[in-house]
Amino acid sequence: MGMVGGGPGAFIGPVHRIAAELDGKIELVAGAFSQSPEGSRRAGATYRIDPSRAYGDYQQMLEAERKRADAIDFVAIVTPNHLHLPIALAALEAGIPVMSDKPATASYEEALKLAVAVAKSGLPYGLTHTYAGYQMVREARAMCAAGKLGAIRKVAVEYFQGWLSGPLEGTGHKQAAWRTDPARSGSGGAIGDIGTHAFHLLEYVSGLKVTEMNATLRTVVPGRKLDDDCNAFLRMNNGAAGTLACSQVAAGEMNELLLRIYGEKGSLEWQQQDPNRLVVRWLDKPEEVYHAAASYLGADARVVARTPGGHPEGYLEAFAVLYGEFADALVAWKQGKLGPLPATLPGIEAGVRGMHFIERAIESNKRQGWVEF
Amino acid sequence: MGMVGGGPGAFIGPVHRIAAELDGKIELVAGAFSQSPEGSRRAGATYRIDPSRAYGDYQQMLEAERKRADAIDFVAIVTPNHLHLPIALAALEAGIPVMSDKPATASYEEALKLAVAVAKSGLPYGLTHTYAGYQMVREARAMCAAGKLGAIRKVAVEYFQGWLSGPLEGTGHKQAAWRTDPARSGSGGAIGDIGTHAFHLLEYVSGLKVTEMNATLRTVVPGRKLDDDCNAFLRMNNGAAGTLACSQVAAGEMNELLLRIYGEKGSLEWQQQDPNRLVVRWLDKPEEVYHAAASYLGADARVVARTPGGHPEGYLEAFAVLYGEFADALVAWKQGKLGPLPATLPGIEAGVRGMHFIERAIESNKRQGWVEF
Amino acid sequence: MGMVGGGPGAFIGPVHRIAAELDGKIELVAGAFSQSPEGSRRAGATYRIDPSRAYGDYQQMLEAERKRADAIDFVAIVTPNHLHLPIALAALEAGIPVMSDKPATASYEEALKLAVAVAKSGLPYGLTHTYAGYQMVREARAMCAAGKLGAIRKVAVEYFQGWLSGPLEGTGHKQAAWRTDPARSGSGGAIGDIGTHAFHLLEYVSGLKVTEMNATLRTVVPGRKLDDDCNAFLRMNNGAAGTLACSQVAAGEMNELLLRIYGEKGSLEWQQQDPNRLVVRWLDKPEEVYHAAASYLGADARVVARTPGGHPEGYLEAFAVLYGEFADALVAWKQGKLGPLPATLPGIEAGVRGMHFIERAIESNKRQGWVEF
Amino acid sequence: MGMVGGGPGAFIGPVHRIAAELDGKIELVAGAFSQSPEGSRRAGATYRIDPSRAYGDYQQMLEAERKRADAIDFVAIVTPNHLHLPIALAALEAGIPVMSDKPATASYEEALKLAVAVAKSGLPYGLTHTYAGYQMVREARAMCAAGKLGAIRKVAVEYFQGWLSGPLEGTGHKQAAWRTDPARSGSGGAIGDIGTHAFHLLEYVSGLKVTEMNATLRTVVPGRKLDDDCNAFLRMNNGAAGTLACSQVAAGEMNELLLRIYGEKGSLEWQQQDPNRLVVRWLDKPEEVYHAAASYLGADARVVARTPGGHPEGYLEAFAVLYGEFADALVAWKQGKLGPLPATLPGIEAGVRGMHFIERAIESNKRQGWVEF
Repeated sequence: MGMVGGGPGAFIGPVHRIAAELDGKIELVAGAFSQSPEGSRRAGATYRIDPSRAYGDYQQMLEAERKRADAIDFVAIVTPNHLHLPIALAALEAGIPVMSDKPATASYEEALKLAVAVAKSGLPYGLTHTYAGYQMVREARAMCAAGKLGAIRKVAVEYFQGWLSGPLEGTGHKQAAWRTDPARSGSGGAIGDIGTHAFHLLEYVSGLKVTEMNATLRTVVPGRKLDDDCNAFLRMNNGAAGTLACSQVAAGEMNELLLRIYGEKGSLEWQQQDPNRLVVRWLDKPEEVYHAAASYLGADARVVARTPGGHPEGYLEAFAVLYGEFADALVAWKQGKLGPLPATLPGIEAGVRGMHFIERAIESNKRQGWVEF
Repeated sequence: MGMVGGGPGAFIGPVHRIAAELDGKIELVAGAFSQSPEGSRRAGATYRIDPSRAYGDYQQMLEAERKRADAIDFVAIVTPNHLHLPIALAALEAGIPVMSDKPATASYEEALKLAVAVAKSGLPYGLTHTYAGYQMVREARAMCAAGKLGAIRKVAVEYFQGWLSGPLEGTGHKQAAWRTDPARSGSGGAIGDIGTHAFHLLEYVSGLKVTEMNATLRTVVPGRKLDDDCNAFLRMNNGAAGTLACSQVAAGEMNELLLRIYGEKGSLEWQQQDPNRLVVRWLDKPEEVYHAAASYLGADARVVARTPGGHPEGYLEAFAVLYGEFADALVAWKQGKLGPLPATLPGIEAGVRGMHFIERAIESNKRQGWVEF
Repeated sequence: MGMVGGGPGAFIGPVHRIAAELDGKIELVAGAFSQSPEGSRRAGATYRIDPSRAYGDYQQMLEAERKRADAIDFVAIVTPNHLHLPIALAALEAGIPVMSDKPATASYEEALKLAVAVAKSGLPYGLTHTYAGYQMVREARAMCAAGKLGAIRKVAVEYFQGWLSGPLEGTGHKQAAWRTDPARSGSGGAIGDIGTHAFHLLEYVSGLKVTEMNATLRTVVPGRKLDDDCNAFLRMNNGAAGTLACSQVAAGEMNELLLRIYGEKGSLEWQQQDPNRLVVRWLDKPEEVYHAAASYLGADARVVARTPGGHPEGYLEAFAVLYGEFADALVAWKQGKLGPLPATLPGIEAGVRGMHFIERAIESNKRQGWVEF
Repeated sequence: MGMVGGGPGAFIGPVHRIAAELDGKIELVAGAFSQSPEGSRRAGATYRIDPSRAYGDYQQMLEAERKRADAIDFVAIVTPNHLHLPIALAALEAGIPVMSDKPATASYEEALKLAVAVAKSGLPYGLTHTYAGYQMVREARAMCAAGKLGAIRKVAVEYFQGWLSGPLEGTGHKQAAWRTDPARSGSGGAIGDIGTHAFHLLEYVSGLKVTEMNATLRTVVPGRKLDDDCNAFLRMNNGAAGTLACSQVAAGEMNELLLRIYGEKGSLEWQQQDPNRLVVRWLDKPEEVYHAAASYLGADARVVARTPGGHPEGYLEAFAVLYGEFADALVAWKQGKLGPLPATLPGIEAGVRGMHFIERAIESNKRQGWVEF
């Protein structure tokens, strides 16, 4: 794999590297890690790749790699959002599959354009909605799909962080800087950075689609250019309703992603910071706690377990599950057998949907009322 | 004390009796426990009061008691909501203080009327927003008042139950029947029964006031006449914003009342089902867990502690704190020294505010948009 | 009821008063609360009893009360341990039933003597092993009795406090003073004060008996006269084995009483500081969490529930359960129908066993080896 | 790196591969994965190594590899215990550093022999006591070293699993078979397999040494040849005392490794199944919860953090920390600069100590009394 982005100061680059390589199916061999050739070179050294494959920009990388016998099999895009589309388009044009960080693009319009390009290319395109890779998220998803909770009536998803409680973007903090800059992040702040994760997780696990939303977005930290705290009412395609909340000014929270789904017979609760447990509560039976790697889990969960019960898997492992599924899809594609990507792996559809969510949230906030999806 | 309501099948009557008597300051000696004289007599026997003081109705009780040298000192109202106003008015008119279950009345209009009567009477009037009696709620309140979290920016309160997930009101279940009946419960279902608790807790702890609300109410169980699931956006008088959610169809939840308040420097979290802990999270220090009865708690918390740390106090004890404060106020009043009730004891103001909240929630839902408070 | 002990500075007196009266079956009407008549009078006033019934000593109380038509029905003993025996003997001799705080006496020899007196008297004698009154302890006990875990193989009980981490007894702290004084506490320190609770809870829930023990006792705080930290290996009468640990120098712990029982098929875990939950783990099924007042609990648990699920009951309520059972036994006894006390209420047998436990622990420690029971 | 063991059916082989490669410093390039050449070949294929480097046995591997320019830098030993010594000796003799799974050998005598060989060789030797790699274990260790808890007085470590609750070894279960077979596992069952982990963790974090032990070992499952449930009293070199418990028949437990250390001023608690939190309780301050990757952690913890706070790291990451430290030591060694291995990385000393622990536990059990260390 060849990575674009992930240079000095980026948190997500090493994460992608570790995740991609974790199951031994993928190797990082090339990259355009930084917009400065020097930065790219330095990053390449920390990744221990062949120096000649640490390129100054992605165009160079694509061009050089396609000529190699041992060319990269796919491009991993881990840049700020505004570069997702051009890089993805260039890769697809070069006939190279894409694994992209989320959100898919910087705007809904761009996402639609990308979807067309993906379709036209016939190439695998994956989107790293990391939380979809957790074992217990897979179990929760299977549980909903099997109707174990009865008809779903109520949903509540929230994603709270506190790291942007102050004006961090003014202190030279690279992560904070681009994430709060509309030119690089797109039109969504918290709603784009983490709201999309919450939105995806909700639809991914429940199997439902949001059809209407009433969102209210705020910018709490003075001078910030994008939203940093958001709440939304949701209506789902089966008549259920609920809420989505996200915040990056929830001081004291680290990465509190919490999903709760209520059905007629019971409910489930999953928390990203305690990812190896899934709590299921019933109307008339004892509460149950499902544990990762347990014998009683369904096939979807068990197939992604690497360690025995009680040996916690975490964020990197969840990430790696997505890369593993993508790698398998690549193999199929190379053998000319690529059908649709596995339903468990988020792809361009999830990407479009996420960008639509951001756009709709902003529109709803503008109107101070409900919007359709 | 003389109780009105709390007869056979009522959950809340024995709770009030235990809570009132717990600290040895109050004794239940009379009651009009049921609308049937026979029911009242039977209830009186279970409460072990003098049979001659188990009255057929509250008018009888008020009339008979005022003639006694050992007359009741106050009336505790524990009936369905629609009777709160007439009983309270009759008691006040008879010169007898009132401790009422919440909500204060069945409508905002009634609450305003009651407020006038209370003011005119000069009598103590207390409202049993039970959760205000918890020790760690007191600590949280003091923490906010002292500004320990910095300016409050974000609030989130939720109160989820699952017991009305089915049409329980059609099965002869007394509690479910009156709570879902507009004639007895008033215009609010879940929003009145438990939403008011959440609303009160939020304002009580944060010290802030809700100034605007956008609420969406649903009736999930077919045939039910009142709301059973509600979500609201809130704006607070200091510019903070947040959410209030309540539900009685959250299958699997028992009595999940959760309050989170986020300030500039940190946040606090309190859960009613784990009431002896208060979690405080900071931007740049380890998370703290405050425990009931600990030496480091503030005076407001310590004064209501009965057992040493690690010996859990619960719902009845919280309830008893309110009765204890009311009993102390009665003593002051009898000595002609009643000033305003202690700020920690919810009174008619909280009652009016709670009814306003219900009314505003329903209006907001009707308009599908924001309403002012 | 008439109380002996519980005067100024005693933590346990008010606890007994609240617990005894909580369910409306018992009223505190007399007492010899202090060894100083003045102290007794003052305590009587705080308990709001008739001043003429606040006696200077227990002999006075017994004598005076037996002449009254409205005499006390039983004596509650809440003094330091060394007074348990003389007071109990005097009460029994006076024909008055006894509810005693634990441990039953100050030595095993005394306990045997008391057992004889109880048997001879034919009077009800109860022992307040508080933790036996918790609803989920009852559920756990029923679960073991029904064999749901399969044959029990392994047990682990621990009771950790930190309040005696320093030489508190030298600071005028009344509780610390008598509990660390052999003359008033008996020969056991932590092993007597809290070890007996752990021991009782273990046998009470498991239905098993300890048959052999290897205990090691330490005195960690220099100058202290009794043990403050103890660990023991146990062998049970069914071949199971396990551990009992207790400490009052476990700095930072409040009142951590934790019981775990492992059977062939699964295990249970109960923590006193989180008393309304019972965790049950299975070999091949999801972990279960049983909640107080839930519909699926067994009869033994449900009969002691006062509040609905999710409305926490605590230490005082557990205490009150024992008093309630004792009150019911008194009624039967007055009607000449007293059989054995209910198996759920600890009595003199538990008292003897507890004192035997202390004596055996000290003996084992002396021998540095196993002792039989 | 070249791996010995880790072939078909082994849980620990892939874990070592992932952990070793996680930080990009090590690559698995060769192996003797199975005692059957065919099994080794098949395993090699799943690890995607060059088929010519999947050797039929470790002697072959050592011989072949030393002749290669791109020879392995070290050998990772992941076989059943009885093979640890011969493989380690052979590697050292061949001048190749060793990273070994624990316990170091199959007996104390063997461990002493190995220690001599390691010393003589001057080669790096690491031991994968995985739990020593957790970030919050590092924080706990630093906290003890800095004396934050005051003098340590009491320790309690336990390691409970339930997977051997039945006679799994008779069902063809490979893991269960060798671990319960004295010929392959050595003289310790649970005490060797997991007791050594508990023992190491205790000494590693507390900085103390066990000087005396009184252990009682049981074999609960009929027909099993080694212990499966153990309890021990400990005395530490600073006068502290405590307990160590381990069990593989604790039905319902997955991998419950719990460490608690009590000092004069406070205590700490760490649970492997919730590894990103460290609970610290104080005598007179609120309980604190330290979270992985937080800004307030000490250097020892922060240096091993890979993901930001709230993005859980797990078992594989902890494992990888040890491999990372070993890799760094290898670099130093190659540059002729190998001093002692970093104190945070368990080495041969820990290995000898662990084997001594097993031997002492068995001896103590035989004597039914205390033994010295």
